[in-house]
Amino acid sequence: MRKLYIGNKNYSSWSMRPWILMKQAGIPFEEVKVRFDSFEADSQFKKTIGALNPVAKVPVLADGDLVVWDTLAIAEYLAETFPEKQLWPRAAADRARARSICAEMHSGLGSLRSLCPMNIEASLADVGARLLKDNPGLQADLDRVVQMWSGLLDAHGGPLLFGGFSIADSYFAPVGTRIKTYGLPVPPAISAYIERVQALPGVKAWVDDALAEKDFVAFDEPYRTAR
Amino acid sequence: MRKLYIGNKNYSSWSMRPWILMKQAGIPFEEVKVRFDSFEADSQFKKTIGALNPVAKVPVLADGDLVVWDTLAIAEYLAETFPEKQLWPRAAADRARARSICAEMHSGLGSLRSLCPMNIEASLADVGARLLKDNPGLQADLDRVVQMWSGLLDAHGGPLLFGGFSIADSYFAPVGTRIKTYGLPVPPAISAYIERVQALPGVKAWVDDALAEKDFVAFDEPYRTAR
Repeated sequence: MRKLYIGNKNYSSWSMRPWILMKQAGIPFEEVKVRFDSFEADSQFKKTIGALNPVAKVPVLADGDLVVWDTLAIAEYLAETFPEKQLWPRAAADRARARSICAEMHSGLGSLRSLCPMNIEASLADVGARLLKDNPGLQADLDRVVQMWSGLLDAHGGPLLFGGFSIADSYFAPVGTRIKTYGLPVPPAISAYIERVQALPGVKAWVDDALAEKDFVAFDEPYRTAR
Repeated sequence: MRKLYIGNKNYSSWSMRPWILMKQAGIPFEEVKVRFDSFEADSQFKKTIGALNPVAKVPVLADGDLVVWDTLAIAEYLAETFPEKQLWPRAAADRARARSICAEMHSGLGSLRSLCPMNIEASLADVGARLLKDNPGLQADLDRVVQMWSGLLDAHGGPLLFGGFSIADSYFAPVGTRIKTYGLPVPPAISAYIERVQALPGVKAWVDDALAEKDFVAFDEPYRTAR
């Protein structure tokens, strides 16, 4: 059975992506959660994940002897292994667009990622308002996300970015949770898309698990001192 | 004819990757070079690339109406469009490993990328020695690259990371030029791999063009005041 190594569900946005992708697509796997104790070299987290993968980051997918790391590589591996699941959009041009926005998420949207770390169970609308006011880069990232999603929802008629569920929706699901946590203002059509994604059974299962975690990880909490 | 939009050849490591990939694989394309004048919103660079692609970064591949951005998405698009070129390794497990290291390059090796920006024509061994002494993260990134390449060269017997040329070699070619520019110490087997990549006609063509550029871009030059 393939194993997916993940971090804390409340915090680990990169872990969330392949987990909800597999859940939503009905690809069986065993979850191995490795708590974020610290990211120092001698932490239990780094020792456990580092034994699998020299980069020592989650997520990691272990499929027999094969170890695949980094979310994009895991997504491509799953798409190749389960072609019948159509994890990427079916049309070649849509696949190229979906890969472009996933790669953009992977290397870009830096203000959103650094200023608004994922924190599913927190309600930080006051923090979000202040961050938006003080950081033009955050507003620019939010504008870019709204533009991207609006364009795709218009082009495909929804309900999801490329019509049906694809890797692209799993890639941006943690952005939806950030928009909710930090109360970032978006147009109604974008809020509605976020809620449709949150209602997908695979996403809901992750969010429910995140809410049930009773773990406050201080180094992932720039804005709170307790939960 | 597909068009690849790139930045300055001396500096733009991300542009280098798909360019040498297509050259080396014999995929015809038209190069459109957009000089790095500045990355401000009103720069000619940002206006030109932003008209194609809201992210306004290079590389961008335009294939008819389809615009593909971000290096990984371009590589996947080319691999799908030209299956006979075998741009990814042929075995599924090798493909997964190749994608893992490319994604790792895309999101990791941060010290190497930020401290040692690509600068093909410069000789900065004194800077490299100082950077290595002052930044344990740079040594860690270098160690990781050496470990990664050594493991793959041993596993496949060379001459390139997965035996024959693949996207993985194009992805790490700019790391090889950095190791040369900054005189970073690596074992002989790694130097030999770097030289084999530099000798590939597609890579040599890029490097020759970079050396012929007479353009000093101050914001990409943390260590020099002129060329």
